[in-house]
Amino acid sequence: MSRNRDYGKSMHQLIGEMYPICRSITGNGVRETLEIIRSRIPLEVVEIPTGEKVFDWQVPKEWNINEAWIKDSAGRKIVDFADLNLHVMSYSIPVNKKVTLSELKKHLFSLPEQPGLVPHKTSYFSEHWGFCMTHNQLKALEEDTYHVYIDSSLKEGSLTYGELFIEGETREEVLISTHTCHPSLCNDNLSGISIAVHLAEQLLKQYQLRYSYRFLFIPATIGAITWLAKNEKVVDKIKYGLILSCLGDPGRSMTFKKSRSGEADIDRIVEKALSDTKGPYEIREFEPVGYDERQFCSPGFNLPVGLLMRTPYGEFPEYHTSADNPDFVRPESLADSLSKLEEILYIIEHNDSYLNQNPRCEPFLGKRGLYSLSGGKNKTNIDQEAVLWTLNYSDGEHSLLDISRKSGLSFRNIARAAEALMQIDLLKPAE
Amino acid sequence: MSRNRDYGKSMHQLIGEMYPICRSITGNGVRETLEIIRSRIPLEVVEIPTGEKVFDWQVPKEWNINEAWIKDSAGRKIVDFADLNLHVMSYSIPVNKKVTLSELKKHLFSLPEQPGLVPHKTSYFSEHWGFCMTHNQLKALEEDTYHVYIDSSLKEGSLTYGELFIEGETREEVLISTHTCHPSLCNDNLSGISIAVHLAEQLLKQYQLRYSYRFLFIPATIGAITWLAKNEKVVDKIKYGLILSCLGDPGRSMTFKKSRSGEADIDRIVEKALSDTKGPYEIREFEPVGYDERQFCSPGFNLPVGLLMRTPYGEFPEYHTSADNPDFVRPESLADSLSKLEEILYIIEHNDSYLNQNPRCEPFLGKRGLYSLSGGKNKTNIDQEAVLWTLNYSDGEHSLLDISRKSGLSFRNIARAAEALMQIDLLKPAE
Amino acid sequence: MSRNRDYGKSMHQLIGEMYPICRSITGNGVRETLEIIRSRIPLEVVEIPTGEKVFDWQVPKEWNINEAWIKDSAGRKIVDFADLNLHVMSYSIPVNKKVTLSELKKHLFSLPEQPGLVPHKTSYFSEHWGFCMTHNQLKALEEDTYHVYIDSSLKEGSLTYGELFIEGETREEVLISTHTCHPSLCNDNLSGISIAVHLAEQLLKQYQLRYSYRFLFIPATIGAITWLAKNEKVVDKIKYGLILSCLGDPGRSMTFKKSRSGEADIDRIVEKALSDTKGPYEIREFEPVGYDERQFCSPGFNLPVGLLMRTPYGEFPEYHTSADNPDFVRPESLADSLSKLEEILYIIEHNDSYLNQNPRCEPFLGKRGLYSLSGGKNKTNIDQEAVLWTLNYSDGEHSLLDISRKSGLSFRNIARAAEALMQIDLLKPAE
Repeated sequence: MSRNRDYGKSMHQLIGEMYPICRSITGNGVRETLEIIRSRIPLEVVEIPTGEKVFDWQVPKEWNINEAWIKDSAGRKIVDFADLNLHVMSYSIPVNKKVTLSELKKHLFSLPEQPGLVPHKTSYFSEHWGFCMTHNQLKALEEDTYHVYIDSSLKEGSLTYGELFIEGETREEVLISTHTCHPSLCNDNLSGISIAVHLAEQLLKQYQLRYSYRFLFIPATIGAITWLAKNEKVVDKIKYGLILSCLGDPGRSMTFKKSRSGEADIDRIVEKALSDTKGPYEIREFEPVGYDERQFCSPGFNLPVGLLMRTPYGEFPEYHTSADNPDFVRPESLADSLSKLEEILYIIEHNDSYLNQNPRCEPFLGKRGLYSLSGGKNKTNIDQEAVLWTLNYSDGEHSLLDISRKSGLSFRNIARAAEALMQIDLLKPAE
Repeated sequence: MSRNRDYGKSMHQLIGEMYPICRSITGNGVRETLEIIRSRIPLEVVEIPTGEKVFDWQVPKEWNINEAWIKDSAGRKIVDFADLNLHVMSYSIPVNKKVTLSELKKHLFSLPEQPGLVPHKTSYFSEHWGFCMTHNQLKALEEDTYHVYIDSSLKEGSLTYGELFIEGETREEVLISTHTCHPSLCNDNLSGISIAVHLAEQLLKQYQLRYSYRFLFIPATIGAITWLAKNEKVVDKIKYGLILSCLGDPGRSMTFKKSRSGEADIDRIVEKALSDTKGPYEIREFEPVGYDERQFCSPGFNLPVGLLMRTPYGEFPEYHTSADNPDFVRPESLADSLSKLEEILYIIEHNDSYLNQNPRCEPFLGKRGLYSLSGGKNKTNIDQEAVLWTLNYSDGEHSLLDISRKSGLSFRNIARAAEALMQIDLLKPAE
Repeated sequence: MSRNRDYGKSMHQLIGEMYPICRSITGNGVRETLEIIRSRIPLEVVEIPTGEKVFDWQVPKEWNINEAWIKDSAGRKIVDFADLNLHVMSYSIPVNKKVTLSELKKHLFSLPEQPGLVPHKTSYFSEHWGFCMTHNQLKALEEDTYHVYIDSSLKEGSLTYGELFIEGETREEVLISTHTCHPSLCNDNLSGISIAVHLAEQLLKQYQLRYSYRFLFIPATIGAITWLAKNEKVVDKIKYGLILSCLGDPGRSMTFKKSRSGEADIDRIVEKALSDTKGPYEIREFEPVGYDERQFCSPGFNLPVGLLMRTPYGEFPEYHTSADNPDFVRPESLADSLSKLEEILYIIEHNDSYLNQNPRCEPFLGKRGLYSLSGGKNKTNIDQEAVLWTLNYSDGEHSLLDISRKSGLSFRNIARAAEALMQIDLLKPAE
């Protein structure tokens, strides 16, 4: 518990560190963010040059920004990028001119229904410029001549992403992917980044992992497309995959959006992990709108990749606004999300199929040193019911996950029983 | 809407025209009805002679009737076929004699629980005579000598049915069948006949149909058996089939009784069409009681034929009584039923499977002239979500119908997206 | 009804006769019980010697007991085996010594939450001694020197069980198994024994049985393991199996715990029989805890064996206590349970698949002497709907059980229709 509380604080702190940086789908903000991550885990930072063809797309020009503001005729800055990077539409081209209020308004974005919040806007694939402000501020603007100034650049450069591969006993992989393209927004998606970093730190400390783990820190859509285009040979190794996003909000319920097949092992594992751990959760079917599961689950790949969240994107009012700030994400939510992920990984690492070596009738557990079991619970903490379920269904057709789902007992309970039965040779690995 | 209102009136008018005719499973009333239909659509009228073997059955003798009444001893007609043809039991043999009240009562039918209504009775396959009257009238009959007179004939002749075949691009067929054997009863089944006629008129106007359409206007049971016996070679071409009946009553809900398999394309198409259009509906499983689906879905044929109704037969109190008259069926109900049928046919005509030509990751829609899509809805009225669903699931395993069901989007929405994607070569037909 | 009332009384009387006997998993109490059964049905009594290896187990030593009591220092018997055999823990080793209260208490068992009842305790596979008493009595014990005396023996001997095989037309078998190891406990399981005896009596009276029937009267767990070890060749013949237990309690609802597969014919048959007969019922999934279904449904056998009960074991407060006495089981409950079993056997004996000999369209039932059917019910008590369902689905893919389930009509209704259709050659057996 206190371990989790510490992790929660640590994850929240990392979010605070990354929060001020102006990220986009390319540019120095991404590089700066990946540097922070690389100070904690041995990330490989990859640069893919502008113009490179990635499936049906091309890597876009790189965008960077130094300064941006609007001044009124009295020279007062009415919005300033230096205050909040959301004030500038991401990928805004350079501009430096004086405009009337009505001309200015064509380039202003606000949220009439959330008049106190600044929206997040982007224009990645068509060249525009724009500013975002609160609707209250916009309504108060008077007729005037405004000086708009954006010192940005949109040039040949590269798309930057980070990748960490942790090799396990087999080359079969667990993919953990999280998007890095959002500017000062915390739940979407500094929460996903921070949790991924902490999870990677934990895995790096373990000297034995059954599966290999691949962490991706990539810009959404174009980043996933780029990575897939560059790593087609890796794709077949992906046995389980999770996109991490929106994992720090105060919502109590976890949400899992299943993979495209809806019946992949990852889908059943996440559902069991969420059911075994405390707290509400919701399982949703795949749909081809959302985050990078759109690319990993495109029909040509159809990978077993789902999306893990707390409150889903677009369903919390702070989504894509200035209210998605460090106060909105909570250490205890981050810690709870991480503990759910750990449970998922526990099942991934321990799920297997065994064969009951004494399949005809029950074995005589008493003479095999499991006698104290027969009355129910015992001091080894191995549940007698779990032993009987594990024996009965270890028939080569049911994995431990299947058995735990069928019995309604927790996966850990079944896995412990299987471990004890292995030790007395009543179970053997299935093939 | 005004088009539909016009159709509703026109269908109701046609019902009014056919209402007075005394139809049965054979005879001149059927011929007269088919003549009226043939004045609107190029029906082939088929005569199958009495005695012809049709599977386990024989075509029965032809029945005709000129006049029928009961007079009391004072010579007053107490019921008269000329007033309402329901007064005579269908297939009554000729009779001309004087009988006591108690003898007469053996041949009278009424509805004690609906004492103001005249029932519809038949005796097709055993030779009897009988009269139908209101229970109020029956109760009021006094001891007297009654003169019963039925000027009917039951002779060698033929069974008459109508058939219209509209050839489409393929010889695969859509079967629309409706029964013509009921006398002055409107919902069951002049409604089905009138809607079939109007639907045929619409299809005849279209210069391009994907499927061929076969309309049958046949007496129930023996007509379906006769047609199937004479058309065994056609049967394999039937890809979708609908029986039309009880489609004009004021009930708001549509009812679809599925085909025997319960999982035929027609079952899924009708459910989707009813779900996409407004108004309540109910889907029922097949059972081997009902109308001609009993024959089309007999195990030796097992055709994909369902039954479309509003309020199901036997579940409205006017069923098989004199209350099933022109006032009971409504122009707006007929129009609504027709519009549902049109939606079903729209799906039949447009359902197909496509292959996404860019299956790995999403295509870059922007550069392909679908850029305005990416924000959501656009002026081409093609929904962005529908585009993404159609791309993702056009994998050779999902038809547009499958995709529309999976996404919860309307079939038309998906079909429009598919059309737009075909035009920019992102989809190709799957075949 | 009066037949059932008589059976109820007779079953209750047999329970009363067996009640005083001290049964265990071995010993003379079992032999005495089997003798009573053998006075009614021609049971084969089998003795398997101590030490014989049965799969992973060994047949245990035989336990017998003559006398047992505790006396206080004044020589008063405070509990006496002669009053109630539950007072001695089953398989208690001999003891004859004086002990302090605190020493005594280590060997006493009671039910603090049911302070007026004596519990049932066993120690089959580890050598202990113990007494059971009410918690009220235990609490009232004062400091004293107590004389504990158990005149029992635990020696080489044998395990005794009873078996009755009734040969039918085929060697395919219906297994009826019931456990005989409980001392003076009525619902668990003299009720199962008594019902099995009466069912066997009925079957012995029938001169024609389609299936063979095998009745087992065996000690739980070790008895089932022993029988399976000795009868592996028989196992393949078991087509349907039922464990009988807890069938006399006043609970109104029947409970059926399905076989391991959950989709065996026995599972569907019992559900249909319980649905066709009146009264509530509950169907539960298999779990590898319970009675001898644990052994019959171990993965190496995986037999189609379920467990039929009224109130499930462990879910009535009298379970495994002195309150499970002859007053707790009711003649009317026993009779009701037996009538449910009879319905199950009726379906087992009559379920079959047929082929409609006139599969294209409905046959003309009128000309085949089934004319009176066509109006609905008739004096032959064969339902017209059942005839149509049976004809339509006798396609080689549906058994009568399938048809009865699909139609919602009772199995007997469908079976009668099939019988009538067989007689007029419209059905033939499917293979």
